[in-house]
This record gives sequence, structure tokens and C-alpha cells, in this order.
Amino acid sequence: MMKKFVYADHAATTPLMPEALEAMLPFLKEDFGNPSSLHSWARHARKAVDEARTVIAKCINAEPDEVFFTSGGTESDNWALKGSQGGVMVSAYEHHAVLNAAASEERRGRRIVRVKPSKGGIVSSRRLSAAWEDGVELVSVMTANNEIGTINPIGELAAFAHRRGALFHTDAVQAAGHIPIDVRAWNVDFLSASAHKFNGPKGIGFLFVRKGLKLAQLLDGGQQERGFRAGTENVASIVGMAAALKRNCECMGENAAHLDNLTSLLRNGIDTSFKRVVYSGEKEGPQLPGFTSVSFPGNSAEGLLHMLDLTGVAVSAGAACNSKNTQISHVLKAINARKEVARSTIRITLGPENTTDDVAAILRALRRFVR
Amino acid sequence: MMKKFVYADHAATTPLMPEALEAMLPFLKEDFGNPSSLHSWARHARKAVDEARTVIAKCINAEPDEVFFTSGGTESDNWALKGSQGGVMVSAYEHHAVLNAAASEERRGRRIVRVKPSKGGIVSSRRLSAAWEDGVELVSVMTANNEIGTINPIGELAAFAHRRGALFHTDAVQAAGHIPIDVRAWNVDFLSASAHKFNGPKGIGFLFVRKGLKLAQLLDGGQQERGFRAGTENVASIVGMAAALKRNCECMGENAAHLDNLTSLLRNGIDTSFKRVVYSGEKEGPQLPGFTSVSFPGNSAEGLLHMLDLTGVAVSAGAACNSKNTQISHVLKAINARKEVARSTIRITLGPENTTDDVAAILRALRRFVR
Repeated sequence: MMKKFVYADHAATTPLMPEALEAMLPFLKEDFGNPSSLHSWARHARKAVDEARTVIAKCINAEPDEVFFTSGGTESDNWALKGSQGGVMVSAYEHHAVLNAAASEERRGRRIVRVKPSKGGIVSSRRLSAAWEDGVELVSVMTANNEIGTINPIGELAAFAHRRGALFHTDAVQAAGHIPIDVRAWNVDFLSASAHKFNGPKGIGFLFVRKGLKLAQLLDGGQQERGFRAGTENVASIVGMAAALKRNCECMGENAAHLDNLTSLLRNGIDTSFKRVVYSGEKEGPQLPGFTSVSFPGNSAEGLLHMLDLTGVAVSAGAACNSKNTQISHVLKAINARKEVARSTIRITLGPENTTDDVAAILRALRRFVR
Repeated sequence: MMKKFVYADHAATTPLMPEALEAMLPFLKEDFGNPSSLHSWARHARKAVDEARTVIAKCINAEPDEVFFTSGGTESDNWALKGSQGGVMVSAYEHHAVLNAAASEERRGRRIVRVKPSKGGIVSSRRLSAAWEDGVELVSVMTANNEIGTINPIGELAAFAHRRGALFHTDAVQAAGHIPIDVRAWNVDFLSASAHKFNGPKGIGFLFVRKGLKLAQLLDGGQQERGFRAGTENVASIVGMAAALKRNCECMGENAAHLDNLTSLLRNGIDTSFKRVVYSGEKEGPQLPGFTSVSFPGNSAEGLLHMLDLTGVAVSAGAACNSKNTQISHVLKAINARKEVARSTIRITLGPENTTDDVAAILRALRRFVR
């Protein structure tokens, strides 16, 4: 039997879509000007950056001048956390870009309040309220969790934060391009996104900052990004990010339907093949399209993913960013997963290019290696 | 006469070299894995990042684990300044990435001492000594200035800082890839570089951090870059940066000879065509290859560059990063240029792809528009 290569780790990173690469190429070739220059070499670049900003703004229902380009989700999260003031309330299962930025601010003397999500992996305003402390001026809760795919009621959480006089940030890195994002309907103040999670290039992202608000700068220097984020604009990647987000937003319904179908197939296959499986994050609402976080108790997740890898199937155990860290996932810990479950949980995240054949190959591999 | 397009603004940004783009493409296509993942999709990416680190380390005579990838020169400078402790001594004609990061730290309560360069545009240890203040724990002086191309005696300055018990950072953004850099011979502690200044892609750079030293993190999050700089690695751009730096280091002598030749032609042409010209930065030592900062008193630099642009010749007035700022260049101010000179100074920066025909076109355009 031929070895079939199946990439099922889309939550870690996604392939750059050909449309995005095509949009980037002119800016990696002849249109290399620095957008801040005043001559005609700069004009194409500047125009492309402006257009990309408009495209991205439209995708999230923002104004163009509310979109600030950054080097990715990590910078966006760090900027929102470190550029704000006062106490910060975060959920305990945020990405480490938020959690570690918060911890760094804590060492500088800011008060950090950590709130546990429910066992189902959801953060509700009731939970924020129960943990509330005076002096909290920023609440940061992710749109969707990157390990278990659960989706939070961001509009409700932002409204709660505002009622308490705090600002609201959401790390939408895992969600952007996959579920609809509407900064106006949700009424969020800050929103982070990263291109490589939605088939754009690595090393580029953005932070939405609601008009009228101001964050202290994280990167000081030149006058780029209306004077708020210095550094020569990464023109090609900005253009690629916009192309990828636009296309993903246009195909969102279609992609989600395809992924829901594949996910059902996958879960049905798992359920009929194995007696003891535990899913995470499926109980209190929909998960991100293509997301399956599943435990095979008695198996080591890491061992399992290595075996799957040998047959050409790529999945993950926890988030890629912490793959060197063999401790139990802080996300599974936060939702009170039993140790036995946490140690044997793998994340299978499908993408639009996956097929029913891919799902069959994943199931074959699981049947072969799960004890 | 055909309009001839001449790009002579290489100090603002450089064209991406074809070898760099070629090296990048596999990572913008099939090798899209996240280097932090554990499966085979990640392996190519991880190996490529490791190899790029080794290549870059070799180019500056560092060890691979002294090289940290960043989103560019601005981030590198901000990291060095904001991640250090104690008072900071900077030169007054640093790039704004250093100056504004220092100003930001000043607002947080750190002591910042600013030292003027000489009229010739050089910072000597004598000048640092004359301005010395107790409590300075970091000295930051650029390797070469980005507006006038002067090159500082970095080894001497680092030795001085160390004698006073301070660490030494140099912003080598304008110099890297153009003149030899040797972190061991210079004995610097931190060194910033940016790929797009040496024919690599925009949005990527690195910070050299001498082994055994530690900076507070600027970007907290995942465990990338040995736990010191979070964020999914920008694999394609890292690979492109390494290819560009390697090639530029290999061709450095050849490029410099070509550029010296073109620069002589240009200056001879200017000297024979115009009675009153004032060069900046040429008096106290060599300038960066291809660099000419020249004033045509009585002319507005901005007006001149717009006229040149109309004929297809791209030059700049001051640095691109501050092109929106119509104030007089802080660099020319720092070297005590007269207002009349500063207002009429343009920067002509040639690159390896420029030809004698290009120089002839620049001279024709200058003769046409300089009053």
C-alpha cells in the first residue's frame, strides 16, 4: 500500500494558498519599494498596503485605520496586553502569547486575574463576574481555543467588560478566516489575528484597535502605521495576508460545510472503532470547523503522533508552540481534564484541502496504532 | 529620449535578490510546516531555520545560538534597548528605532544620555567618555549611519563601554551585508540587523546576543528561539535572509569596488557640474559603499527628489522611515549641518545592480533640476 501523506494539523499552521502567493510575488520582485519612500518605486507598495488594510478591515467589519499590521499573533497579543494599563483579567486557557505577556506584566507590578473556563471549554460572563476584582481595566478572552476549538460568546464577554468599565481584547488567531468575525457586532476594543493560521504567510498578523483608543507602543521607531507601530512594512506578506483572509471569508460557508462533513466522518469512524474515547470541547456549543480534540486513554499522545507521522499522517498533541514542552497542556488542565485523558489527547485539525480519503487514512492509522 | 528608471535609494530598501526568493519559494509552497510541530511536515522547516541560523552566525563570526530571529531592525533595536537595564547612552543620530525606544524607556524612568557625533558624523570613545554618567549600563551606537553613511569605530566603542562596566549594542542595520561585521573582533554584546537592507525580504531581521547575556523578552509566548522570542518562525523569510546575507558577504569586495567606482563617477560629475555643493559624512573616514549625502544649497531637497522622480530617478531626502516628517533630519542636526544645507540635502545610495549609465542618468537629472 502506498504511503498517503495527510496533513491534519491545520491549527498549527496552514499551507499558503496559491492566490496569496501570487498576490505576494510582484512585491518580492519588481515592486520592492519601501512604502515610506516618496518616489514612484514606493507608490505601488504604499497603494498595496493601503488596499490590503481596506480588505482586511472589511473582512472583520472594521474601518481601515483601525487595522495595524504586526509580525503576527504573538506581537498583536503582546501589544494589546503590554500597551494597556491597569489590572488584566485573562482566561486560564489563553494562548501563551497572552498568558506569558500577562505574567510578564505581573512581574512589572500589574494585577493579573486568571479565570477558569468551564469543563466544556467555554468562558462565560458569569465566570468573569464571579472572579471580578476592582482595578481590572482590560479583559482578554480568546475567540476560539487553539487546542480544543471551543468558541466563546465574545459579544457577551465584551459587553460584560464594558459594563464593568474595562476594555476588551480577544485573541482571534485561531478563529480568523474560519468563523465570521464582526468587531462592531461584538463591540470588542482589540482583536489579534495571524495570517499563517488562515492560509496566509508566516510572520505577519494584525491588531484591530477600536477608533479613539490608544495603546502604548510596543515597537518604537519610524512613523509607519500612523506612528503607532514602527518598522518597514512587510509589503508582500501584508498583501498575501489580505488575499488569504478575503478568500477564506468568501469561502467560509463552503469550507465549513466541507469540514463539518469530514469531521462527522472522522468522529463516526473513531466512535465505531474504539470503545474508550473522550472528546474535549464538544459539549457546550460548536467547535471550530475541522477541529477534533480526542483522547485515547491508555495511549501516550506523543507516542501516537510519532507513529501516525511514520505512516504520513500529521496531527499534534497540544499546541505546536509548546511542543518542546512535555508537560500536560495548560488548556486541558484548565478544563479539568483527568491526567489520563490529558496525556492521551491528540488534536486532529482538518483543512479545506483534506478529503474523505484523508479521513479514511487517518482512521486506518488510528486503528493500527491505538492500543 | 527614453525615460530611464534608476533606483538610487538602496539605503531605504533593496531589491530582493533572485537567489533569496528562490530559497524562499519551497517554504511558501510545499514546505509550509510549523517548525515547532513534531511531525515530518515540520522537519524541513525546522532544518531550514537551523541552517539559516548557522549561515547568518558565520557571516558575522558568531555562534548559531547567539542569533535570534526578529521581525526586523526595529524589533531588534527595541528588544536590545527595552530588554536591558540601567541607564542607556545613545548617540544623537541613531535610527529612530533606537532613539524612540530610548525615549520610551526614559518615560518609564530610565536615565538616557545622548551623545552628539562629530561634525564629520563619527562617534568616538572620547565623546562617550566626555558625556559619561554613572549608572549607564548600556551603550548603543550604530555601526554606520543610515542617512550619511559614516562608519563608527565599533571595536573601540565596545571596549570603552566594557571598561566602564557597561554592555554595548550596535544597530548594524545599515551596515550588515555591506561592510564586514565581526562580533568577536568588535566584542559587541548585541547587534541588530534587517534583511531588506541587504537584498533579503522585508519583515525579518535578527538580534545577536552574546552567549551568557540575557535580555528581558519583548515578545512573550511560545517557546520559539530557545524560549527568548515567541512567535511562529517566519521560515521563508528567515531562509531568504540567510541566502541574501551569505551572497552579499561573498560578493562584498566586488560590490564595494563597483560601488566605489560608481560613487567616484557620480561625485566627479557633481563637482564639475555644480559650484556650490556640500557633502555630509565624507571627512573623517570611509562611508558605506555607494553612499552619497549631498546638499545643493538654495534647492529644496523634497522638491528636488520629486523632480528627479518624474524623470524616473529615485533618491531620498533623509531616511524613508521619517519621510512623512518634514522637519529637518535629526542626523544632519546632530552633526551641526547649517539649516540651509540640511534643507537641501539629498541621499543618493547606489546598489550593485546600478551601472555607469545609471550614474549618467542621475547626473543628467541633477543638471536639469538643480537651480
